[in-house]
Amino acid sequence: MYKPLRGIIPATPTPMTEDGSIFPDYVPTLMNHLVSQKVQGIFACGTTGEFASLTVNEQIRMLEAFRDATPSGISLIAHVGRGSVAEACEVSKAAARMQVDRVSIAPPHYYKIGDARMLTEICARVAESADGLPFYYYHIPALSGTSVMMRDFVPLAIKAIPNFKGVKFTNENLMDFMSCVDEFGECAEMIYGRDEMLLAGIATGADAAIGSTFNYMAPVYAQIMQSFQNGDHVSARRWQARAVSVIRLFSRYGGSAVTKAMMKIVGVDCGPNRQPLRNHAKEERTALKNDLEKTGFFEWRNGNEL
Amino acid sequence: MYKPLRGIIPATPTPMTEDGSIFPDYVPTLMNHLVSQKVQGIFACGTTGEFASLTVNEQIRMLEAFRDATPSGISLIAHVGRGSVAEACEVSKAAARMQVDRVSIAPPHYYKIGDARMLTEICARVAESADGLPFYYYHIPALSGTSVMMRDFVPLAIKAIPNFKGVKFTNENLMDFMSCVDEFGECAEMIYGRDEMLLAGIATGADAAIGSTFNYMAPVYAQIMQSFQNGDHVSARRWQARAVSVIRLFSRYGGSAVTKAMMKIVGVDCGPNRQPLRNHAKEERTALKNDLEKTGFFEWRNGNEL
Amino acid sequence: MYKPLRGIIPATPTPMTEDGSIFPDYVPTLMNHLVSQKVQGIFACGTTGEFASLTVNEQIRMLEAFRDATPSGISLIAHVGRGSVAEACEVSKAAARMQVDRVSIAPPHYYKIGDARMLTEICARVAESADGLPFYYYHIPALSGTSVMMRDFVPLAIKAIPNFKGVKFTNENLMDFMSCVDEFGECAEMIYGRDEMLLAGIATGADAAIGSTFNYMAPVYAQIMQSFQNGDHVSARRWQARAVSVIRLFSRYGGSAVTKAMMKIVGVDCGPNRQPLRNHAKEERTALKNDLEKTGFFEWRNGNEL
Amino acid sequence: MYKPLRGIIPATPTPMTEDGSIFPDYVPTLMNHLVSQKVQGIFACGTTGEFASLTVNEQIRMLEAFRDATPSGISLIAHVGRGSVAEACEVSKAAARMQVDRVSIAPPHYYKIGDARMLTEICARVAESADGLPFYYYHIPALSGTSVMMRDFVPLAIKAIPNFKGVKFTNENLMDFMSCVDEFGECAEMIYGRDEMLLAGIATGADAAIGSTFNYMAPVYAQIMQSFQNGDHVSARRWQARAVSVIRLFSRYGGSAVTKAMMKIVGVDCGPNRQPLRNHAKEERTALKNDLEKTGFFEWRNGNEL
Repeated sequence: MYKPLRGIIPATPTPMTEDGSIFPDYVPTLMNHLVSQKVQGIFACGTTGEFASLTVNEQIRMLEAFRDATPSGISLIAHVGRGSVAEACEVSKAAARMQVDRVSIAPPHYYKIGDARMLTEICARVAESADGLPFYYYHIPALSGTSVMMRDFVPLAIKAIPNFKGVKFTNENLMDFMSCVDEFGECAEMIYGRDEMLLAGIATGADAAIGSTFNYMAPVYAQIMQSFQNGDHVSARRWQARAVSVIRLFSRYGGSAVTKAMMKIVGVDCGPNRQPLRNHAKEERTALKNDLEKTGFFEWRNGNEL
Repeated sequence: MYKPLRGIIPATPTPMTEDGSIFPDYVPTLMNHLVSQKVQGIFACGTTGEFASLTVNEQIRMLEAFRDATPSGISLIAHVGRGSVAEACEVSKAAARMQVDRVSIAPPHYYKIGDARMLTEICARVAESADGLPFYYYHIPALSGTSVMMRDFVPLAIKAIPNFKGVKFTNENLMDFMSCVDEFGECAEMIYGRDEMLLAGIATGADAAIGSTFNYMAPVYAQIMQSFQNGDHVSARRWQARAVSVIRLFSRYGGSAVTKAMMKIVGVDCGPNRQPLRNHAKEERTALKNDLEKTGFFEWRNGNEL
Repeated sequence: MYKPLRGIIPATPTPMTEDGSIFPDYVPTLMNHLVSQKVQGIFACGTTGEFASLTVNEQIRMLEAFRDATPSGISLIAHVGRGSVAEACEVSKAAARMQVDRVSIAPPHYYKIGDARMLTEICARVAESADGLPFYYYHIPALSGTSVMMRDFVPLAIKAIPNFKGVKFTNENLMDFMSCVDEFGECAEMIYGRDEMLLAGIATGADAAIGSTFNYMAPVYAQIMQSFQNGDHVSARRWQARAVSVIRLFSRYGGSAVTKAMMKIVGVDCGPNRQPLRNHAKEERTALKNDLEKTGFFEWRNGNEL
Repeated sequence: MYKPLRGIIPATPTPMTEDGSIFPDYVPTLMNHLVSQKVQGIFACGTTGEFASLTVNEQIRMLEAFRDATPSGISLIAHVGRGSVAEACEVSKAAARMQVDRVSIAPPHYYKIGDARMLTEICARVAESADGLPFYYYHIPALSGTSVMMRDFVPLAIKAIPNFKGVKFTNENLMDFMSCVDEFGECAEMIYGRDEMLLAGIATGADAAIGSTFNYMAPVYAQIMQSFQNGDHVSARRWQARAVSVIRLFSRYGGSAVTKAMMKIVGVDCGPNRQPLRNHAKEERTALKNDLEKTGFFEWRNGNEL
């Protein structure tokens, strides 16, 4: 029976070797770590997974590695998006063949999309290639440049795409988010994707979250969710503030590039980033570690009350 | 004894006559309406009050009218900001002389401010002119173009400005908002200013809110606050969704220009907008009214459960 | 008989004393300097003149000082724009009474203007206050936030405003500029306002230019114009490249704030900037001077071939 | 002997069949048309060529078709850029094997590039894959989101990339363009890429231009160049104004999507666009044709004086 996504779902990095090749053999190690963090799903080969820097074959190979390593009880969402719709369909078909649990796409992003119908047509095509697998649209206007409001897109998607299941909403426009929860929440899972504002996302209706910082501090976010559900708003805010104290550091350490540095710091070395993401020099990683210590990260990241 | 701001505080319009003159004599009528809505404060001559379209003398005259009409128990926050700091000081002095309860400024906005120290110096100068009155900085980057993070500004303001009391935060960056609540919440009131996201603002730490739509549906927002504090998240979301269903309409009816149209519709005719805000033709107001009816606005705007 | 604007017209700063008061008595000294640079007009109390930081009375007082100091043969364009249309009309009337040569306004800029008709109505009102003086609209979207295309505005302005004479076009959209030159050039003077791209402006049809760097290197721009008209494109580019080598430095020294530092350096000390523009510390001005030396500024700024 | 690029170079579309497959067999027909327009080069599989919507194999296959069809005397620039650097290297190697004349890349565009050194490293890698072929960087910040100034990039590229030859500069920042012409013009060809501002590009130093509208009105741009070189500025402006009168229409007809509609109109049917670009309905193409007629397009597009 179909179960909607719930809880904390890391958007996980693509392990690479020092020479920049993909490193599928490392996925089981990465997966063990994530499972130990009690995550409820895995979002593979998305923004954090550097999909845009992979070739089609690399993306398919990595999805296989994740499929093989994902234990039952954890839902694997395969990000099959590519700049080219033709390529996205190719990856989508492969994902269906290898029987991942769900698929998702960020939209084409060189030519920017401003029309909800065009976005729906594209999603419909990729969703069809996925052969009935639950399909999620990945809304991330800061990177994709898409200017379509989800409130306009979601009703079209519900109508046109039989396997449409919801939206990974990586944006701060909570009015748009909330409109979708309110009007289409019965038919579309609205999953929040801005870790630094997760509490706001939950308050406005999210039951699940996908984010990059869940790779190394998932229990913090579980505490936010749990506290909120218990009506303990003070605790919820305290945990969110802890997450924020870490995320705030990243503006100095390079945004998207920081995930792999953090993974190294927590002992799960996923290797370097590909261009155009930069890699930290050793001194920079040491500085980041020192800054993390000041926030108490190493004490509270496992979700233990201090 | 000093009491921090709490609850629902409308950013109220400046009444005008049909020929576009200010209409201070209408303020008591407007005030009666607002009091009947159970608001806890009044923010006068701000963005909704068209401060940028007033002359210095008009702004002072209107603040006097609001001072005269504000009953005890309701806090009057006089927005004394102007494009020119020299003029802001002039209005600030006048506000102090006439003994309003608090003052606030949006920053100079033709030359954009990107430096937290410059912003602090400007606020310090205007706050000093206010002769000790509680002072709030009005953060509204979408209109002022200011790119300073509040997390950088608030600690400087606390140090440099004896009468600094907090920030009216009209932005969707809840990471910045939350950082301030978490780190400086003891010394700075963080007041939320995006009505359509109030629930998110409360979840991340707001105890007070200033907004334009509170002029005609304040009880809706009181319900959001109350429900949230009671731990009734479903009810909180339902009320916020109602507010959103109305605010969403405004993209079609002209953003800032819509407040006076709404006031007419709820029977408190504050007259026309000044240029550059446009005024609705009668047909347009009728269309807006019809759209409002479809949302149920006239049934739930007084905060009654249906 | 009416003469359209031609040639090099500095957007001149407002002299101030060390305590930040306006300093009208310095205007004759400033004017002598500008006249010695062979400028053909003066644009007073505009962006470079810090209009947005002045009070209405200060702006009027400064315009009087400029009126008194402007010799015959040089056209004084009084910028009468203010954030508030009511105030702009007040300054416009004063400018007409004191008989400046022409008036101009930047539009209201807190509430942004997106509609060509609204912009026309506002201009019509201010132009009417100017009692028949030649009127110019000042298009500077980077600061005013106006999103109206001049191609849409100019035909409306020609029709609705009897004393409309043209546009000071401070933008890099040369397609819009060129459209206006081509279609309305008979009825509207299209004056270019981006000094660093003046050669491009001339090539696409400008006969006059208003800019801030003309205060201290007007002869450089006269050389650009002259070379271009002589068909000596190599020389035109060489002079433009010289101007660019200086303007490029300013990103490090603070954009709008730099004019008064440059005036000090060329020996015409117009005093400090008002907030929110910052003032250079002495060391910073020394560094700027050194950087200028490397460009050869002090050798070629008077327009002499090297 | 190496010859720098000169003159008018269309950024040409990728022919497709009605079902959206690539249509390499149509390239000779397209090429005949372009040759008849007296173009001096061909830029294939770039933005206009929908590279971002092709698969790697499709891009390589199309480049082969262009290589086969390009007559001697016309320079074929193969755009080998992809979202992924790994894929760009793959296409670059193929382009070198098939012996195109030159290669070029737009940079990765999902993760935005803000650092000149990173951009140089990426270009160096792709340029190396091209096995010594002349290499051009394609600067198009409106689509790629790259915030690097060319003035910072070009000197690094000259130093680090032996086969670096220049920049296709598709931006309106003519100060940056001009800085490069002035300082590095001996070592880097600065090619202008905004058709609607070509005259400004030439005035500031361009000797060559690459653009999409050259596919159907190349002679108009040849006239602009010729007139300018003859010192006939009035004629240059008249021809540029004609081009502008057409380009201006496109805001109504869908930007990037319009090239294939225009090709149909001039009788060189390159088929439909791929998603996310839309295709015109027949009525829309008729409307466009009518609008074109009003501009005189069909009379002057072949560069004949009227």
